[in-house]
Amino acid sequence: MSSKAFQWPVRVYWEDTDAGGIVFYANYLKFFERARTEWLRGLGVGQQHLRDAFGGMFVVTDAQIRYLRSARLDDLLSVTALVREAGKASLTIAQSAWLQPAQGSVDEPILLCEGTVRIGWVNSQHMRPMRIPSDVLALLQPHTVTP
Amino acid sequence: MSSKAFQWPVRVYWEDTDAGGIVFYANYLKFFERARTEWLRGLGVGQQHLRDAFGGMFVVTDAQIRYLRSARLDDLLSVTALVREAGKASLTIAQSAWLQPAQGSVDEPILLCEGTVRIGWVNSQHMRPMRIPSDVLALLQPHTVTP
Amino acid sequence: MSSKAFQWPVRVYWEDTDAGGIVFYANYLKFFERARTEWLRGLGVGQQHLRDAFGGMFVVTDAQIRYLRSARLDDLLSVTALVREAGKASLTIAQSAWLQPAQGSVDEPILLCEGTVRIGWVNSQHMRPMRIPSDVLALLQPHTVTP
Amino acid sequence: MSSKAFQWPVRVYWEDTDAGGIVFYANYLKFFERARTEWLRGLGVGQQHLRDAFGGMFVVTDAQIRYLRSARLDDLLSVTALVREAGKASLTIAQSAWLQPAQGSVDEPILLCEGTVRIGWVNSQHMRPMRIPSDVLALLQPHTVTP
Repeated sequence: MSSKAFQWPVRVYWEDTDAGGIVFYANYLKFFERARTEWLRGLGVGQQHLRDAFGGMFVVTDAQIRYLRSARLDDLLSVTALVREAGKASLTIAQSAWLQPAQGSVDEPILLCEGTVRIGWVNSQHMRPMRIPSDVLALLQPHTVTP
Repeated sequence: MSSKAFQWPVRVYWEDTDAGGIVFYANYLKFFERARTEWLRGLGVGQQHLRDAFGGMFVVTDAQIRYLRSARLDDLLSVTALVREAGKASLTIAQSAWLQPAQGSVDEPILLCEGTVRIGWVNSQHMRPMRIPSDVLALLQPHTVTP
Repeated sequence: MSSKAFQWPVRVYWEDTDAGGIVFYANYLKFFERARTEWLRGLGVGQQHLRDAFGGMFVVTDAQIRYLRSARLDDLLSVTALVREAGKASLTIAQSAWLQPAQGSVDEPILLCEGTVRIGWVNSQHMRPMRIPSDVLALLQPHTVTP
Repeated sequence: MSSKAFQWPVRVYWEDTDAGGIVFYANYLKFFERARTEWLRGLGVGQQHLRDAFGGMFVVTDAQIRYLRSARLDDLLSVTALVREAGKASLTIAQSAWLQPAQGSVDEPILLCEGTVRIGWVNSQHMRPMRIPSDVLALLQPHTVTP
């Protein structure tokens, strides 16, 4: 299995924060979604394209997230996505958000939150669960690392 | 012309605030939209219904807003909507947000922001501007107060 | 233990939906937060008050959510909150969102999603985890039903 | 005056769209804020830094925006910011969002919306309007183009 997670940078703006001075908890699910979208785009499967070409889309069926540390305004995060399980009708994706050290700093990234998101394929008209088109699935499978 | 604005209560939640401790400026446009939607619903024209029955929807073509005071977590606002001009293809709606005094207080509401939003009617398929269906327009016209 | 969940109505507005025509998955965490806030307010512990009086606030440490059905524009939801476990430093709250039947309909509410959210108490200055103040905890404990 | 606007790329994600299939109108104010923040960052004045060093922050006092075309999922926008007027206590910034042509296309960018945002400087504790610190203002002044 590929051990290398996809990474996507996310900057924290005013819109992401709340009156506690930190990133609002629901917004990490936005960041996770951006990373999944960019990971798909990198594989050549933009989501508008999926709808046009296959008449379907991925929808989230389960999400779990553990919050360890807070992010603040102006922080630069790195958000990851890595396929953990690929089934016929759904994918389970491990995701996490890391605080990047300031430029020039020797600090290590700090884990802010981590979780898993399961996405299923549905017909975009009727929202009915369906098998992921095999052409799509082929691109998304976690790769076996050949020895 | 009706001088009585439609009013809709909006509570400020964590999701609405930012790290400055106040409601994020873009979110007043959400509050304005909620008031417009509830005003339309009160007139019997839910927006999903508009799409199903007339194949069109209102989209915002112009918005201007002046921010005077800030709202904070837990504040209760009253958001208004009042048709100022009704044309064949667009409506101009005056909107404002007021901080409601605490229950039992004798304080007056405080104006937080005010603005105008112009909405035009478009075909929901192609997003092309069209005349507002006359059945819809009849409901939305500012009413002449008969003596 | 109290078997009666707190319920809070949530209307779906344009801001809540996405291009799939349904409520964006992260927004259910906003709805859950609103229900928790209103449940706390009903117990007399507004969150701004908690910060002023106790110098602390609740932050989410874990969230999990299972999505079963989609909500659409104009839908009216009922969102629940019920304390499942009350510890010294955190609370686990069961939450769910239900689609309310149209007015006058005899249909039953439909479960859209359900999950649990764990909240911990932190010092609002330094974000350090602390024991929930006993005055606050007393209000939040799941009540024993006396025979 | 500098005729060169600051530009910032913004990708459209699910979170930005609504059930009309387009970017929700309030979200352009988020995009405008991101561009202003990155423009300030480029000048060496991060907003957390402004609060720490000067005890103040910029807040929006006026916004106006004209919507011409819609953006959709996966679109890549370019968002601009350009100081139009710099006063002692406020700045007026011209902003716009452009749809970028697909990579490899010879199409021109398409103007989606444009507007102006006025920001004033306030004490971050009491939210009182104050003069912009001269060190900050020096950095933000529109530059005179010397002949």
